[in-house]
Amino acid sequence: MLNELSIVGKRLPQPAAVAKATGTCKYTTDITLPGMLVGMVLRSPNPHARILKIDTSRAESLPGIKAVITRRDVPDSQYNRSMVDLLSPGKRPPDDEYVLADKARFVGDAVAAVAAVDEAAAERALELIKVEYEELPAVFDPLEAMMPGAPRIHDYAENNAARHIVFPFKTGDVEQGFREADHVVEATFHTSKQAHSPMESAACIASFDAAGRLTVWSTHQKPFPARTKLAGIFDMPVNMIRWLTPPAGGGFGNGLTFRGEPVCVALARKARQPVKLSYSREEQFMATDTRQAFVERVKMGVRKDGTITALQTYLVSNSGAYCSTNTSTTVVNMVFFLGFYRCQNVSGEADVVYTNMPVTGGFRGYGNSEATWALEQLIDMAAEKIGMDPMEFRLRNVRRAGDPSPVPALPIESSCLDECIRVGGEKAGWGRRAAGSRGVVKKRGLGMAIATHVSGGYGMLLERSHAAIKVQDDGSALLVVNINDMGQGIETVLLQIAAEELGLRYQDVRIVNGDTDAAGFDVGCASSRSTYIMGTAVMKAAAEAKRQLLELAARTLEVEPNQLEVRGSRVFFKANSDKDISVARLVRENVYGFQHPYHPIEARCGWEPVGNPLPYQAAFAEVEVDSESGHVRVLRVVVAYDIGRAINPMNVEGQLEGSIAQGMGYTLMEDFVVDRDTGELETDNFTSYKIPGTLDMPDIETVIIEHPTPSGPFGAKSVGEIGYNAICPAISNAIYNAIGVRITDLPVTPEKIRAAMKGK
Amino acid sequence: MLNELSIVGKRLPQPAAVAKATGTCKYTTDITLPGMLVGMVLRSPNPHARILKIDTSRAESLPGIKAVITRRDVPDSQYNRSMVDLLSPGKRPPDDEYVLADKARFVGDAVAAVAAVDEAAAERALELIKVEYEELPAVFDPLEAMMPGAPRIHDYAENNAARHIVFPFKTGDVEQGFREADHVVEATFHTSKQAHSPMESAACIASFDAAGRLTVWSTHQKPFPARTKLAGIFDMPVNMIRWLTPPAGGGFGNGLTFRGEPVCVALARKARQPVKLSYSREEQFMATDTRQAFVERVKMGVRKDGTITALQTYLVSNSGAYCSTNTSTTVVNMVFFLGFYRCQNVSGEADVVYTNMPVTGGFRGYGNSEATWALEQLIDMAAEKIGMDPMEFRLRNVRRAGDPSPVPALPIESSCLDECIRVGGEKAGWGRRAAGSRGVVKKRGLGMAIATHVSGGYGMLLERSHAAIKVQDDGSALLVVNINDMGQGIETVLLQIAAEELGLRYQDVRIVNGDTDAAGFDVGCASSRSTYIMGTAVMKAAAEAKRQLLELAARTLEVEPNQLEVRGSRVFFKANSDKDISVARLVRENVYGFQHPYHPIEARCGWEPVGNPLPYQAAFAEVEVDSESGHVRVLRVVVAYDIGRAINPMNVEGQLEGSIAQGMGYTLMEDFVVDRDTGELETDNFTSYKIPGTLDMPDIETVIIEHPTPSGPFGAKSVGEIGYNAICPAISNAIYNAIGVRITDLPVTPEKIRAAMKGK
Repeated sequence: MLNELSIVGKRLPQPAAVAKATGTCKYTTDITLPGMLVGMVLRSPNPHARILKIDTSRAESLPGIKAVITRRDVPDSQYNRSMVDLLSPGKRPPDDEYVLADKARFVGDAVAAVAAVDEAAAERALELIKVEYEELPAVFDPLEAMMPGAPRIHDYAENNAARHIVFPFKTGDVEQGFREADHVVEATFHTSKQAHSPMESAACIASFDAAGRLTVWSTHQKPFPARTKLAGIFDMPVNMIRWLTPPAGGGFGNGLTFRGEPVCVALARKARQPVKLSYSREEQFMATDTRQAFVERVKMGVRKDGTITALQTYLVSNSGAYCSTNTSTTVVNMVFFLGFYRCQNVSGEADVVYTNMPVTGGFRGYGNSEATWALEQLIDMAAEKIGMDPMEFRLRNVRRAGDPSPVPALPIESSCLDECIRVGGEKAGWGRRAAGSRGVVKKRGLGMAIATHVSGGYGMLLERSHAAIKVQDDGSALLVVNINDMGQGIETVLLQIAAEELGLRYQDVRIVNGDTDAAGFDVGCASSRSTYIMGTAVMKAAAEAKRQLLELAARTLEVEPNQLEVRGSRVFFKANSDKDISVARLVRENVYGFQHPYHPIEARCGWEPVGNPLPYQAAFAEVEVDSESGHVRVLRVVVAYDIGRAINPMNVEGQLEGSIAQGMGYTLMEDFVVDRDTGELETDNFTSYKIPGTLDMPDIETVIIEHPTPSGPFGAKSVGEIGYNAICPAISNAIYNAIGVRITDLPVTPEKIRAAMKGK
Repeated sequence: MLNELSIVGKRLPQPAAVAKATGTCKYTTDITLPGMLVGMVLRSPNPHARILKIDTSRAESLPGIKAVITRRDVPDSQYNRSMVDLLSPGKRPPDDEYVLADKARFVGDAVAAVAAVDEAAAERALELIKVEYEELPAVFDPLEAMMPGAPRIHDYAENNAARHIVFPFKTGDVEQGFREADHVVEATFHTSKQAHSPMESAACIASFDAAGRLTVWSTHQKPFPARTKLAGIFDMPVNMIRWLTPPAGGGFGNGLTFRGEPVCVALARKARQPVKLSYSREEQFMATDTRQAFVERVKMGVRKDGTITALQTYLVSNSGAYCSTNTSTTVVNMVFFLGFYRCQNVSGEADVVYTNMPVTGGFRGYGNSEATWALEQLIDMAAEKIGMDPMEFRLRNVRRAGDPSPVPALPIESSCLDECIRVGGEKAGWGRRAAGSRGVVKKRGLGMAIATHVSGGYGMLLERSHAAIKVQDDGSALLVVNINDMGQGIETVLLQIAAEELGLRYQDVRIVNGDTDAAGFDVGCASSRSTYIMGTAVMKAAAEAKRQLLELAARTLEVEPNQLEVRGSRVFFKANSDKDISVARLVRENVYGFQHPYHPIEARCGWEPVGNPLPYQAAFAEVEVDSESGHVRVLRVVVAYDIGRAINPMNVEGQLEGSIAQGMGYTLMEDFVVDRDTGELETDNFTSYKIPGTLDMPDIETVIIEHPTPSGPFGAKSVGEIGYNAICPAISNAIYNAIGVRITDLPVTPEKIRAAMKGK
């Protein structure tokens, strides 16, 4: 079947490839409007402080200043910066934020903003705004924040609890499960506040026209929900907002929340001129969400035969000053921690806790990667306890096709995880694995981990996509969607699906993307949903357009539609492949001819999935640990993936290899350091906050296992996040394999290893 | 029935009203792109000359010059500048033009072009291009141009005949008809080359992106066909061109042809930078089409009882250097001259002739107004001959509902022309009409004329429109169309139709217009088609969206759709109008709720009409002629119109009053003067080419007679051109009534009247 496809499966370049390679691609900051002002935000230097008074008079009288805004000038609407409240069926996360802060809750909280004719004027104006603060005691550690007597960050949140969550899909009796176990392993893991670090920092432009219609340019990952939320904040009809999404220089979940858009709109509204607000790299670190830092108290009961009898988790999520996506990521953490392996008795609880830290939210893996880091280490610990090979232990316990999915109320549609483990293990040399070279300084280790993820949010989040196809008068086709291309290449994937299904040549289909006026409603680019869900909408729209095309051809050629097929932008007679007519001619005659009836060839599909096929990953990491310096070198990573089908193998490899780098950074390097006295962020640039570079990269071998999943477009599952989840625990398990010590808080720095080695 | 409508029939403002009134509306010339160059065209100073050599070397070496192009740099594709070839079923007009001329055929012909960083550099570069011409004898009069031995303007066109046309809908035996007549009246009329004079002169921007996709900004009246034609010239897929139509400062048919777009694209292609090409007012006069100047040799046979026994016309159209729409306007002239009144024996012939004059093409009235000017004078002449009141003579002979339409193969759907004549005549004081005040210097006269026009091109031209409606997640709706708003207010009309049909409030519907990527195929804004044809497409799309809305409501409320209705953005129970639910809530729950199935509420309609209801006009003009100076003052104009329904009476009045001004200008003032020695245009500005100002305007009384026509949206016929057609002959007949002399060539200047009075 794989061979029958002519466009799907090809390594085709992105439509924006030339623009990106030649530097002519227009990112948000490259856009200039006549009369556009520079927006800048005044941020609190205090982690926790009451704002007593803001004097903007000197700033306002500065030449070139067109607007100065404070809490008084923005709507009195309180909202959650993420879109989770709009898109999840359960309890809403708290509405805890205003366009500008009512009090400062972290160093970087937005307290005022200016719009000026240039940057220099804007900077000067910020200096001239005088804010009188009453400093309050601050708290940074979530466990401290939960203690009685801790400083209260939000009036309504007793003990700084944004939410207490009880795992809603609890099964069995976990205490009974632990009693039935031969061994109970438990640990407390601390995950870290990884920064998304997209190469493009957040930027936004807001412009009102004379009729009061607002256009927003921003690479938000969920432009339709963001438009709805913005309309709510500013009390505007949705129709009065057009949201344009320029190409984005990375996302990884950083664009799931507002990143200055409401401030930018408030400035444009007051200044009555367009405003561009571009975050500096420092602001990007300080004022946009990072990955949430969990404290994960986890526990597993296991019998000698390898049966897992109980699984329990208690999570504390350090939400930072506002809640953002933290209720949702926390639930996802529990869903995957408790649902990945077969186990009858599972339960979980969690507290989402406010602190005076910068805000945390969704990041590639979205709670699941944090769950997997703990779970896969716990698995290794349990396997060790019962003296079973960790691979065998995993194979014994993983859920398989037909089993209940971790995603509630769904069975697992397909799984090639066994094959991933076997193939990956073979390539990684799992059979030759030994504990790391006793006695020498540089110790080697091999570790593995497995993981899954979602293909969209179905079962947990609202899922809706929309695709429209219009066949032009020369037989070429336009695909209209709204799904953020953040570099992952979704546009290529959708074009391949459309062209393949339509029977047109790849170059005959073009895409219109990123305009809420042009496209139908879509929930956005997140949850590894785009290929599976938007891809299906595109495929269905293309199938309908092809049906119309074949009907037109049949009418013109006076045969039945089922006698015809389309390939390479030509219509063939199935019975005689020498006889053909070009789509161009057919359509041209339909549009410009005088035959009746005239039916434009166009199709649209607004689609919601009814499934959520899980992709899988088996990761193997080989590391070398310098037991004196504590330095870890990742020598080799082998990963096998079950993604159903690679629509574009080049894109898939890009996603997977990028995930390995990002997972490696998370495990070993990326440290988001906030001074516990001042609340100041010490790592707000790429000198102090180190992400992996090409020289840090290990040898990589990726194996893509393609068994089409029934419900996916051409069999595809998702690929956006699955590459990430198992990398971190595989490395951690490899380190343990090398040195016999387990570091339970991220990142695994040389200092921690040295300290642990000393302890040992 | 009229009272049942709540939005249609209201005097609502244009969506762009505030922008236009505050000067913030962005017309094409207001748009600026990064790196955009200024384009300028070098035009021939000779009316007819072979281009021997063009030396561009000095221009090219000038600083700031990014591209210099001549015939060598443009595609070798020959085309007709109008879109008539794409849109008419008959014989194509000649492809007679290149992007840049192969030889100069009129003063103003484009022979080279430059793109420069600024205007000064571009102007300097034009001066430095050295063109070596071989001057050829020129001819300006079409009758001379047809003579043997006249200079040949196009190699292929013997006797400079672009086309010889025989009226294809000839009936009876015209010679027999003349034999049966008691009287034969005949005359030769000369119409004039009226310039459209939109306030905005032609402008275009062309920009290629890195992938080679071209965006064109231009207020072309037929953007989809223009895109198709441009794709052909530059050998590009249609998909690789996006045509954006900014708001236009007037059109009147001037935008039916290319007005520099191909040159602009060729410059952008060579310079590899965006180029803006804005025509100066001089270029607007010289290098864009004007109304065609016809020589109309017309003849009517009439019996004493008022029966018209024969009608014959022979037309010579002075096409100018290229053919443009001249075949089409010439056929339309014959169609209405020969088909407006009942007459068994009709025939016509025409020659479309090249001369070395600036090019002529379609203008409000599009051949029909020129036909009507001759016909309605001939009618008065015949009435006088048989001693019958001209009004009575008209009423005796006009075709009525059910009669064959002048538009071939269609019956007349509806006509209130009798009522228009009666009501208009009463208001104008037709009963008190007398020959103009003998003996005094200032002579008064009253004249009348009647006319019809089309509601779109059906029966003669390709007709297709497309509308899409998308209901947003707060119940507001977006209407997506592509139909040029040139000030006539079509956007308002379409929004009223959409809101009325949807049952939403007017402010809850917004329009997306002027983007070939966003909208479905539409033939453009011409032939008085927009309200009738696009309006119907909008109404049908709205009806389908409403059906979906009621289905959703019925599902939600668990009743049958037919128990419900929508009004004022709320859904009511028909049986109990106190019980209602807002559309906003319904749709919000549909989009953001977790109920299944999810069906986005959206509809589209690609529509072609199957009728062409004729609007009607009866115009009455009262003039005062100074028999010594020859000056004519139009004192009062009364016009009654049958337009089916006024969707927006304010818009209708605007169209009708503008038509009166334009018709008055055509009749009395606007004189396009070309020096017969040099071929130079003497009237290339508003000082030498006078159009009526507010002080020239007479008292105006317009009567809109509303009897909904069955096939129109809410009963509407068209209104764009009908206001124009009868104005000119009504004034001419009034002048004859005043002074007893008939001036048969336009414009009717004081000089001509003085000369005629002398002759008398």
